[in-house]
Parts: sequence; structure tokens; C-alpha cells
Amino acid sequence: MKKKRIAILGSTGSIGRQTLDVISAFKDEFEVIGLAAGSNAQLLAEQIKEHNPRFVSVKDSTLAQELKAILKNPSFEIFWGDIGLEFISSCSCDIVVNGLVGALGLKPTISALSHGKRVAFANKETLVIAGDLIKDLLVKNRGEIIPLDSEHVAIHQCLSGQKIDTVKRMILTASGGPFRTWDIDQIKAATKEQALKHPTWVMGQKITIDSATLMNKGLEVIEAMNLFNIDSKKIDVLIHPQSIMHSAVEFIDGNIISQLGATDMKLPIQYSLFYPERRELPFNLFCDLLSIGKLEFEKPDMEKFPCLKLAYEVASKGKSYPIVINAANEIAVDKFLKEEITFFDIPKIISRALESHSPVSTSSLEDILEVDKEVRVKILETQSSVV
Amino acid sequence: MKKKRIAILGSTGSIGRQTLDVISAFKDEFEVIGLAAGSNAQLLAEQIKEHNPRFVSVKDSTLAQELKAILKNPSFEIFWGDIGLEFISSCSCDIVVNGLVGALGLKPTISALSHGKRVAFANKETLVIAGDLIKDLLVKNRGEIIPLDSEHVAIHQCLSGQKIDTVKRMILTASGGPFRTWDIDQIKAATKEQALKHPTWVMGQKITIDSATLMNKGLEVIEAMNLFNIDSKKIDVLIHPQSIMHSAVEFIDGNIISQLGATDMKLPIQYSLFYPERRELPFNLFCDLLSIGKLEFEKPDMEKFPCLKLAYEVASKGKSYPIVINAANEIAVDKFLKEEITFFDIPKIISRALESHSPVSTSSLEDILEVDKEVRVKILETQSSVV
Repeated sequence: MKKKRIAILGSTGSIGRQTLDVISAFKDEFEVIGLAAGSNAQLLAEQIKEHNPRFVSVKDSTLAQELKAILKNPSFEIFWGDIGLEFISSCSCDIVVNGLVGALGLKPTISALSHGKRVAFANKETLVIAGDLIKDLLVKNRGEIIPLDSEHVAIHQCLSGQKIDTVKRMILTASGGPFRTWDIDQIKAATKEQALKHPTWVMGQKITIDSATLMNKGLEVIEAMNLFNIDSKKIDVLIHPQSIMHSAVEFIDGNIISQLGATDMKLPIQYSLFYPERRELPFNLFCDLLSIGKLEFEKPDMEKFPCLKLAYEVASKGKSYPIVINAANEIAVDKFLKEEITFFDIPKIISRALESHSPVSTSSLEDILEVDKEVRVKILETQSSVV
Repeated sequence: MKKKRIAILGSTGSIGRQTLDVISAFKDEFEVIGLAAGSNAQLLAEQIKEHNPRFVSVKDSTLAQELKAILKNPSFEIFWGDIGLEFISSCSCDIVVNGLVGALGLKPTISALSHGKRVAFANKETLVIAGDLIKDLLVKNRGEIIPLDSEHVAIHQCLSGQKIDTVKRMILTASGGPFRTWDIDQIKAATKEQALKHPTWVMGQKITIDSATLMNKGLEVIEAMNLFNIDSKKIDVLIHPQSIMHSAVEFIDGNIISQLGATDMKLPIQYSLFYPERRELPFNLFCDLLSIGKLEFEKPDMEKFPCLKLAYEVASKGKSYPIVINAANEIAVDKFLKEEITFFDIPKIISRALESHSPVSTSSLEDILEVDKEVRVKILETQSSVV
């Protein structure tokens, strides 16, 4: 049997490391062709030793030198920066795992889809800011996206064998994050440490803060809209503290199909690498509904979590607004993580960015990146004097 | 568009009446060709007036006369007895809805499948006692079974687009019946009225008692085993008091797919009539997870519900044992409904019938009916002196 060749973007991040865990468990089925990482040269060196990729990319030339110094006789080709990411995403692989965070993942996604690859896709920001562009690429090339977000991979499974025009409603579940039961004043005073304590998932810092503001769910609404070509009015968010039901689809005939499972990214990663096949899970991650005992559902509170409300508004407005909400959120979360702003400054910054934005049409990568850059510059210029 | 032609066996029963409700809501899509009922001539006459079938069958010639007296100028052909049921099930229809109760449904099912019909199937006893025969018919003819039991239609939907060899486990949910929270001594003293109070479903009397003993779930384990060609060891029963998750399938890769919906038989009936299409539900029966709030799961207690334990033993033993458990249960439930025995006499009668049975191979309808008859005669002869 021919091994499937895998390239991983963001190999030292949470998705990247877990993808390598899955690959290590199926050595006979997969071959790592390319690894792209940011600045964790030490971990990347270990990954290279274990998986022996042909192509490696790092953030910049300094890191490339550092990596060469760690690995004495490298048998791989090394690249860096944007060009490195694009090379890895279009190399001679079958599947590109895009575990990059933020708008950084856009160009490599375009590159991979243009080359007809399957993209296992955890980089929701790309689908938020460049929905039309990505949809267009999917139509024009043989490429495909298999989502890695637990919600979207749940919906992907619920839609198996079904027609999209029989979908009445998609139900994205949300854990509710660490502040689900807090009152609004407590949330306003939340610290970085409190916001980083996610109740059910272990993830990277940016997405963990996004889960605390519920912006993560808001971005997922926009992502689902683009991924499944469905009106955002047909996408509901339901708070489900146990995070066991990962999402559901209600069909027009009243039947709801849902996917449930352990809260571990290795499940969607394995699914995306083998789809449409399924293989025995090599990890002790089977889900026991008995030991969980109950699954609860609540309505999300838009006053306590204004980011979700903003995201729904953006989903309905379309045009360049999704680029604005994403860029403003990335900057605001970064500032919160640097403890420069309070937790409730995050929606404030985003809201101001949206209000002051004059929408434009964004049909090309250049258009998107220009809006993205403008929004970032504007916030950084004005933000310190405003908050 | 050509209308789909429907024949209904048991049209005045719970499944039959609800099937006619669905058909009435889709008059442009369906045409009632045949109706078979037992002894409720009055209701059958009303159904005939509304749906104008070409063929009608009743229990016996007396009832046929009665029906003719009610309907002055009948425009349909009338039949009765076994021959009537078989005629209706093999008439010029596309779908046979088998809403018969008990072993009575076996011959018409064989007849419909032999004629390559789709059978919308609520008559679980037939699949319990004649699993191999039915499977054989499905292989040899173009016929198909779409289950109507909420659990099996749930699994049918969960398997959409999936391969049966990737199934790790089927999870049949059970409401737990009216005695879920009772202790064993209370259950032993349960009256007919108490047993007929089902917490979540409105159904016929026999199936309601079977739900109170959990024999219904036990028969469903055997039914699922035959319907989906899966080892009974891979079928779990989970108590789920809300009856919203109708069943689930766990795949080998750790993903669980489940179907949820309102507790109303019109949903599976509509699904079975339109499959593989889905149509907008014309009833106000959409399921709101928010207003339900929580879904709970418990392990079934085999001491309190010995019928479930007996059914698992039978599922594993195979041969003619399923015929015995079904026949003994039908007689025991009938006696309980006539208040001739206590609630816990039901498993006792079944257990004795199983213990005294010498298994035989049953490859033909005649073999099956012979064992069925022997068991019934034996119980009726010995039972009054034993309990």
C-alpha cells in the first residue's frame, strides 16, 4: 500500500504535535514530507529526527541556521518565511494539515488548494476572511477541505450521505468557556490567567481566549457559513458545557443528527487523514456516555459575550466585515495576552473597528490582505489613546 | 409526478393511523392502495371514506359483512384473514407499511419482500423470530426494509454514508419505562394500569407493557442484530429517560453519530416513506434541545428488568430461541393485560419456556410457525398450574 504523504503547517503547535501523534500511531500508512514551524527550533529538531521529512520551513533565516546547528547532517531542504510556508503547502504531498493560527494561514491554504491537495483545516481565520476566494478555489480545482475544528468536523460527519438542501439548521455547540457561569461584572474584571483556563479543551493561547469571549464560536459561525455554503441565519449556537456533542444538524423532516466524542483533537485529525475511510482509534479516547451521565444545553448570553453578537452581525453583513472582525480580534487578543487591555476591551476594540469600517469588495488575495493590514494599522495607531 | 402507492397493514392501530396522518399531509405524493385492519370496522370505514383504497382486508368474513353494511356502495375489493393480509402486502403498491403486532406480521412481510416491495417496518417480532429468513429474502429480491422503530430508524440514519464494518458499537437507547426509578419489590407488585403509563411514548398496549419490562428493548437488540447484520455483543442498551436521543452508532475511530428528535412516530413514518429523500415536516414536531435542557444516560438494571437479560442470552444463543422468547412474551403479556398473572410472572413464564426448549434449526416459514405454535400450546397447557 502506498503511504499517504503529509505536510504539516505549524508542526510545533497544538494541532501539529497531535497530528504527529496520530501519524506515529500509523507509521505504515503515512509519511511526513514537509514540516513548517515558527520559532520552536528545539521541538522542530526532535520532530525532524523522528519523522525525517524532505522539506522543512521555519520563520526566518536565523532560525534556519539555528536548526542546522542542532541537526548536524541535515538530509532535508530548508526554507523560511512566507515562501517556505507556500513551498511546503504545495510540495509533493497528498494532504496539507494547516494548523496555523490567524491570517498567516491564508496564503498557504490558497497554495495547497490551487495544487489540488486535501487540506485538513484548523485555521478558521482563513475561511473567515477569505470565504469567497476559498470557495472559488474549491470549485475550480480538485482540492478539498476537511475541517479539523471539532464543531465543523462534527457537521461534516452529520452531513454524510445527506443533501445540503435538506438542512434546516446547523447547531454549533460551545462549551461556554471559563466564564459561562460568571456574571457580567466578574467577566469584565477577568484576568489573563482566568481566561486561559478552558474547562474542557487544551488548546493554543489565542483560541483559548477566543473561547472565553465566545469569539471563537462567532468565527466558527462564519467558518461554517463558508465551509458548508449555508446562510448564517440557519446556524445556531448552543452552550453545551460537557463539550461531548460537538455539533448537530437538523434536517427539514425534523430529524437531528449529531456527532459526539472525546474532547481531543486527535479524533478529528485522524478522521481528516483517513476520510472517507475510518480506522480503529489507537488512543484510549473512546467516549462513554454512561460515565458522562448527562449532556446539558443552554442559550448563549449575548450581553455577557458581545463578541458572539458582533460575529453574527458580521456574518449577515458580509463583504469585507469578516476581515475586520478577524484582524481586530487578533490584535485585541494579543494585547490582552500582553496584559495591555482588559477582557471587555476586546469586544470594544472590535466594535469600534467594525463601526469605522467602510466595506469594500474583496475578490482577490491582495484586496483581502490590504483590508487586513489597514485595519491592523488603524487599531494600533488609535487604540492606545482610546482604551 | 407519479404518486407513491401505499398499503398499510394494521391501519386502525397506532402506526396505521399515524401513517394515514402523514399521507393526508402529502396528498400529492401518496395514494393509499390497500388497507388491512383487524376488528375496528367503524374506524376502518372512516379511513376508507377519506383515502379511497382499492383493496381492503379485515379479520374475518363477519367483519367484512359489517364493513359492507357501513359503507353502502363500496368501490373497493374486500378480503379477510391471512389471505387478505397477504393479498394487501403483495398488491400493486410501492411501499407496505407493516404496523402489525406480533408474529401475525411474518407472512405478510415475507410476501411483500418476495414481491420486491419496500417494507416500512414496525413489526419487530417478525425480525426477531425470522431473522435469517428475512435476511435471505432481502438478498434474493429487490425488496428493502426501512425500520419504523425509533431506535432502528435512528441507527439507519446514523449509518448513512458509512460502512457497516467500521461500526464498533450500536447504542440502543431506552426510556426505562414507567418503573425505571422503582425498586424491585415495587415493580413486582406493579398493576396493569401502572405498567400502561409510559413516560414518553404513546403506543399500543402490547408494546407499552414490553417497554415496562424492557423486553421491548431486548427484542430490539435481536431486531437490530438481524436488521444490521451485527453481533449482539456489539449492541449496548443505555437508559435515556428523555427519549430524545433515539439511538447512536459508535465507529471504530471513536466518533459517535446519534439521531435525536421528537418522540412521535410520525417522524420515522415520514422518513420511511420518503427515504432517501427528506421533506419538510408538516407537523409541529421539531425538537428543541434548549427547552429539553438535558439528556441523561444510565445503565440498565438487569435484576430489576430480567426480560432484557433473557433477550441478550437469546440473542447470543440464536437458533430457535428467539421464536420461544417472542411467543412466550406475547402470551405472558396477554395474560398480564387480562390480569391473570403478576408483572414479574412475565419473565418467569418466558424463562421457563426458554429452559424447557430444545433448539432446532428453522430455515423455513413452516419451521418457524411450528416452533411458535408448540411454545404457545405448551405454555397455555402448563402455565395455569405453575404460576
